[in-house]
Parts: sequence; structure tokens; C-alpha cells
Amino acid sequence: MANVPAAIQFDDRFFGDQLLARADRFKGQANEALVKLRNKTCRGAEWTGWFDFPARTGFTLAHQIKRLTADIDVHFDLVVVIGIGGSYLGTRAIAEALGHEYQAYLPKQNTSGLVPIVYAGHHLSEAGLLELLDLLEKRQPMVNVISKTGTTTEPSIAFRVIRGYLERRYGAREAARRIIATTDKDHGALRRLAGEKNYRTFEVPSDIGGRFSVLSAVGLVPLALGGFGIERLLEGADEVFAGLRDEQPNALQDAVVRYAACRHAAHEAGKTAEVLNFSEPKLRSFIEWWKQLFGESEGKEGKGLLPVGFASTTDLHSLGQYVQDGVRNLMETFLVFDQGGGRDSLGAERRLRLPHVTENTDELGYLENRLISDVNTAASQGTKVAHFEGGVPCLELRTGVLNEHTLGALIAFFESTCAVSGALLGVNPFDQPGVEAYKKNLFGLLGKPGFEQLGAELRRRL
Amino acid sequence: MANVPAAIQFDDRFFGDQLLARADRFKGQANEALVKLRNKTCRGAEWTGWFDFPARTGFTLAHQIKRLTADIDVHFDLVVVIGIGGSYLGTRAIAEALGHEYQAYLPKQNTSGLVPIVYAGHHLSEAGLLELLDLLEKRQPMVNVISKTGTTTEPSIAFRVIRGYLERRYGAREAARRIIATTDKDHGALRRLAGEKNYRTFEVPSDIGGRFSVLSAVGLVPLALGGFGIERLLEGADEVFAGLRDEQPNALQDAVVRYAACRHAAHEAGKTAEVLNFSEPKLRSFIEWWKQLFGESEGKEGKGLLPVGFASTTDLHSLGQYVQDGVRNLMETFLVFDQGGGRDSLGAERRLRLPHVTENTDELGYLENRLISDVNTAASQGTKVAHFEGGVPCLELRTGVLNEHTLGALIAFFESTCAVSGALLGVNPFDQPGVEAYKKNLFGLLGKPGFEQLGAELRRRL
Repeated sequence: MANVPAAIQFDDRFFGDQLLARADRFKGQANEALVKLRNKTCRGAEWTGWFDFPARTGFTLAHQIKRLTADIDVHFDLVVVIGIGGSYLGTRAIAEALGHEYQAYLPKQNTSGLVPIVYAGHHLSEAGLLELLDLLEKRQPMVNVISKTGTTTEPSIAFRVIRGYLERRYGAREAARRIIATTDKDHGALRRLAGEKNYRTFEVPSDIGGRFSVLSAVGLVPLALGGFGIERLLEGADEVFAGLRDEQPNALQDAVVRYAACRHAAHEAGKTAEVLNFSEPKLRSFIEWWKQLFGESEGKEGKGLLPVGFASTTDLHSLGQYVQDGVRNLMETFLVFDQGGGRDSLGAERRLRLPHVTENTDELGYLENRLISDVNTAASQGTKVAHFEGGVPCLELRTGVLNEHTLGALIAFFESTCAVSGALLGVNPFDQPGVEAYKKNLFGLLGKPGFEQLGAELRRRL
Repeated sequence: MANVPAAIQFDDRFFGDQLLARADRFKGQANEALVKLRNKTCRGAEWTGWFDFPARTGFTLAHQIKRLTADIDVHFDLVVVIGIGGSYLGTRAIAEALGHEYQAYLPKQNTSGLVPIVYAGHHLSEAGLLELLDLLEKRQPMVNVISKTGTTTEPSIAFRVIRGYLERRYGAREAARRIIATTDKDHGALRRLAGEKNYRTFEVPSDIGGRFSVLSAVGLVPLALGGFGIERLLEGADEVFAGLRDEQPNALQDAVVRYAACRHAAHEAGKTAEVLNFSEPKLRSFIEWWKQLFGESEGKEGKGLLPVGFASTTDLHSLGQYVQDGVRNLMETFLVFDQGGGRDSLGAERRLRLPHVTENTDELGYLENRLISDVNTAASQGTKVAHFEGGVPCLELRTGVLNEHTLGALIAFFESTCAVSGALLGVNPFDQPGVEAYKKNLFGLLGKPGFEQLGAELRRRL
């Protein structure tokens, strides 16, 4: 095996011998699926543009985006991302993982110069939209509306309200300078509106579905506006994608193949949920991104592992009891970063050790002068053994310090594993036929032209 | 049936005839379980103090708490809750459901005078704790540390760090005035420390477990500090508890019995997860509270429904595909509030309608002048039918406008249903034996005195 600078290590020592034997039988198939992904001969190949996007287009795009952000001629201190599903989950995942937990409370100089990002158009809460307007009133917003078509109900409603607000406050001309539209290259409502209103625009690539789009303009534009290092994100991803595209077998390919085979073995053995265990609270939105990626790619035809997030050690005092002792239909993957204390606003590394106190009423004396991170790591490792002994097969994905580079690598790794795993399951991992069902009913109930009959029928039943 | 002013309506019309027939067979048993809860003859009866807490103690306690908050002689503009599991989940559930989504960004006069609440001691992230210190430095904090024993690792570490910080910044005397300890009445490390340091204290009741404790001092003290109406919370809960304690059968008892019977029927039919679908993003922490309540109460002895949150319409573009088309081991409960636009900072009701625009590129013309809430409600109802048709049995819990009163009622309703449902399952809903497993391993790996041998063994395996 060629020695690739493997950003991600895969560990299956706590998966259980029986399941590992079962997984062995799927490795050949998983490897074939990876080859087909590489050769673009897999099912849904027209949607695999993400697999070489960084190298093919990403770095050029990043350059354009950085030119744009340097070019913006209005002052802004807030970025509003309008989008639903894959149009915002990846951005939020990265912005929250790398931003300051209390950014909203702190002046910009205390948060490494990052500009706060808030989200709209991913729900239909009237109160929520009104409260967003309260916030806009106190800030100078820059808006990035992201929609392939421009007619998805949730973001369209939010955008209509917010662009109306901006036009009233700033006038049509300045409002247009505060709006960037990321949409289909040629077609659709938002492309048309952007032309009429003279918005800056970026493309939603035509060969990348929403949940695989974070490293395209969909995620890169708002992340650049927020002040994140989008090249480093692309570099991390490109390393993984390049390793997986390499004709020469290597450790990364092995990790993807084994992870996909283990997941499939668990599924075939009757497991119905994968718990993703993470030890850093700021990853909570990353987990939401992961849930969409796997849930929407694999949850079809009566199959798939339900993706479940588990914040350690928080959820050990919540879902922990269930994972330890509940129905044994779970498998668990531990997502492990090199823990640390992060950096201060000047970029210097900082650490925190448990201070000494004279009274030892809290019985923590044995931990004095230890790094808090070491306690966190011990909790994660101790949990893995406890859950394994409780009957939950456990895997581990380990990478470096949490930053743009490792997150980019991890995104590429999960996307690729998801494609391979979906192929093992025998589904098309790139479609989402089930997302339409509620939309039709929604249109019917709201009396959208063409859906009147469905609406009448639904009202009879409800 | 006596006509009780039922705060909560239960609807099982989309649960499916087969499961409803199955549920019918458990209603007698559920009713017996409710009677035993009322008579304190159920399993774990020594932990059912919550079932009459508001009437027995709550209102008196609320009065004491309000006197205390009026009495505080230091200025504070931030409340820090230090606690894990049931010690903070209920507080956070209510504070986020009723607070302004962007409170952190806004001056106090824009958020109905509420004081922001932040949380610590529920994780072991070193970076997270350092970032909290960044925030404390910019604010005048009041700290409420909540722990029955005072030796739970996570909150003890956070409290040692934070009280050290307060003592350095304010001196020992003022620091003590900024700290309130909620702990066991007589025993334990925190009780002892509070005595030595002269902290104000409140009691963790000895007959109420963590996940049932939100309406005791555990939740009421920080919520009062944050500015919430704790009497209204208690009133809402008391109405439900009183209805359930009534010897006369009524609609509320019927709702608890039917809900518990339906959940159990689903479990016996092989369902392994309950999805709680909610349409207001600000309920996301309420769902975390619910996940602990049911997950920790029922997830034992290889049984129980895994509690899964589902934010509508957000997650329709994420987990929606799985719920619609994935493995058919799910049941779903829709939590429905009367949607509205909330209130402005002066308390006036406000609404938002979709504005008219001359161009209709977004194809939303048919929704012009409609309330956003109506669209949200249609989405929720349309989803229920879609998921039912996709093979997911659906229930609905409907209450009024989201406020202290309805939240209190809902908390009482869920706690009571959980107790009845756990009895049907044949488990003790008030213990949590599985929470100890990881703790032992953690102590072993960290070399806590007495756990050295376990630690050596674990290190060999890891």
C-alpha cells in the first residue's frame, strides 16, 4: 500500500469479531464501488461532481470568491444565509465548529475577526422570521440566498421578506449590493430575479446535489464572507479525494472501504441506527450536516441506518442510558479530534488545566494540573469500551486538531464513504424521492394552483 | 368523564387501525399504572415527588425564589448554569423556547428584559470552557451551580474553574454573593462547600430524580434569574397534575393513558424509535429535555423507544427522506402549538404575512397576504399525512400558544406519560443504571484512587 499522508485513521477494534467477519465479505464489493465512483460509472454518476471538485474547479472558484469579498463596497457586520437542507447545513457545520461559541456576545476583535453568520429560510416559523428582522435592524447585513431553483417554499418566503426589508431600508440599489445569489447557472426563478435586480451571482454546480455541495460556491461563498479559510478547507478535502482517486491502493482507500463494509455489515445484521459520538460541543451542527448526508442518501426503499448524533459527555447524561442498555439495534462511530484549548483572539494556542484548591471537597484532587482535554479524551475512550461491553459495536474515526484542513478532509471522507456505502445497500445515494411527499401535501393544503383536488381530499381527512 | 380544562389534546387518527387495536389492549394496564402513580404505590414510588410538587411545595418555593432574586445585591447581566443532564436540560428547554432567538446580539430592552442564560459543566471541552471565560470577562455573571452530590466530574471541573475566576476577579466575598448552589438538603460535597464559602443555597428535592426536576429549584432558580414567569410555569403544570390526580376520570387522564398505550403498542410491534416532530425552531432544547426524559427512563433491559428529534420543516430536507422511506421501525409524535408571530419587546402581539411583489418569479403569488404561520401549520399537517402513508404511525399532541403556561403543562404531561409508559414496559422509569458504566471507565483511565486496576486493564485494551 502506498503511504498517503492519511488525514483520517479508522479503527475497528471494538466492532466485535462476528460483525468484522461479516464486514470482510463486503470489502470486495466496497472496493468495486470506490473504483466505479472514481471512474464515474456508478449509479447516479451524473451527480458525482463533488468527487473531484476541489482540484477541477474549487481553487479557481476560491480565488474568484476572495476577489469578490475584497470587492464588496458596502459595510457589513452580519452574514445572512438563506437556504434549506444542503444549502446551509455545511456552512453552518463549519462556521460553528471553527467559530467562537459566544461570538454573538463578543466584539469582533475578540473572535479572530470573524463575521457572525445567521440562517434563514430553513423553517417556516413566523416568530423566528420576525426575530431575525429584529436582529437585521441592529446590524448591517450581507445576504447570500442559495437555491438551485428559487422556488423552494421555505427559502423563497424568507427571501421575499428579507429583500423587501433591505429595499425599504437601503433603497433598491444598495439592497442589490447587499445580496449575493447562488443558484443554477442558466435556469430558474432565482437566476431570473438576480438578472432583473442585478445581484452578484455564483453557481450551484449542475453535477452536485445539495447534501454534497458544501465545498462548492454553496458553502464557500458564505464561509468566505464570514472570514474562514476556504482554501485550507479545499486543501483538506483535495488531499482525501486525491488519495481516493489514486490508482495505487492506499490507507485512505482502505479506511473508506472498511468503514463502508462495517456499516453495511451492521445493517445486514439488523442494526437500524448509527450513533455518531463527538466530544466537542461546537460540532453539533457538523452532526446535522452528517445526518442529512447519510439519512437522505441511504434512507430509502425501507433500508438504511438512521443517523443519530451523540454529544459526549453531554448526552451520556441523557441518551447514554439508552445507548448503554436499550434496544440493541445500534452501532456507534466515535469521531475523534486531537483535543486542545483552541486559540485566543490573537491566534496563540492556549490550554486550561484543573486548578489546585486547598479544600478538596469536590474530590477532584487527583485531576489537579491535568489538562481538561485529557479528561475529555479519557471519557471518550472509556465510553467506547462501556458501550461495546453493553452490546454496541463501535468504530472510531480519528483525525488531527479541529481546523479548516481536518474538517475539509472529514467532509470528503464522509461523502466518499456515503457513496460507497449507498452502493453496497443497493440504493441510488444521490436521489431523494421521499422529500417530495410532504411538499405535494403542503401545496394541496395551501391551495397552490394545480393542487386543489389533493387539497380538498386532505382537508376531508385532517 | 369530567370536563377538565384540558391543556393538551391527543389525536391518534393517523396511527393505523392495527396498532390502535393493539393499543386498546394496553389501556387497562396504563390506567392501573396511572392509579399507582397517583397512590404512590408504583415501582420507584420514592422518586415520584414531582407528581404533586407544584401544589405541595412549588408555589411556596417560587415565592422564596422571587424574594431571593429581589434581594440580590450585585449587578448581573448574565446567568451561568453549571450542571449536567437534568440539572440544566429543563432550564435550557424553557429559556430557549421563550427567549428571543437572537438575544445574545440584542440589548436587554429589545428582549423583554430577559437576562441571557449560558450553560457550563455539561461537557469536558477545554476550548469550550476557555471560551466561556472569554464571555465572563465581558459580563457581570451570576452563577447557579446545580449538583445533588457536588462530585459529578463535568460540573465539578467547571465549577472549580469558574469559582476560581470569580474569586480572582471580585474577591472571595463578592464571588460568594454571585454564586447560588442548588444541592442536597443536608449531605454532599457541594452542600459542605456552600457552608464553608457562605453561598446562598436551594434544595434538590430528595424524592425527585434529575430528569424530572425542572419544576423544582433546579429549574426555577435559574429561570427566575433569567426573568421568566416561574409561577405561570407551575400553574400550567399544576393544572395537568391536578387533573391526573383527580379521582374522577377526565380527558387528561384519557390522553395520558392512550398516549402511553399507543407508544407501548408501537414498541411491542417492533418499532424502536419515536420521532418527535416540532414546528418551532426554538423548541430544539425542549426536544433535548424530552430525549433525556424518555431515553433515560425507558432505555434499559434491552427495551425502549429511542427518542429522536425532528425539526419541521428544517429536517424535512435532512432526515425527512429517512422518515418517509427508510427502515419502517419508526413511530412519530407531532407536537403542535398554536403558531403565531410572538410578541415585540413591549409585549404586543405581532404577525407577519407574505408581502406582495410585482414580479412573481418565485411563484409564491398564491400565498400573498397569508400568515407565515398558516404555511407552517399546513406543512406540519401535510407531513403527518405523508409520513403516515409512508408507513410511519403518527400521533399528535396539541396545545395552545407557546408560553410558560403551556410549557409547564406539557412538561407535566410528558413526565406523567413517561412514568405510565415505563410501567407498561416493565422497567423502573426512575433509575439509570447504565449511566455508571462510562464513569467507572473514566475514573480508571484517569487514575482515580480505587480504580487503578480497572485503568491498567483498560489501557491494555485501548
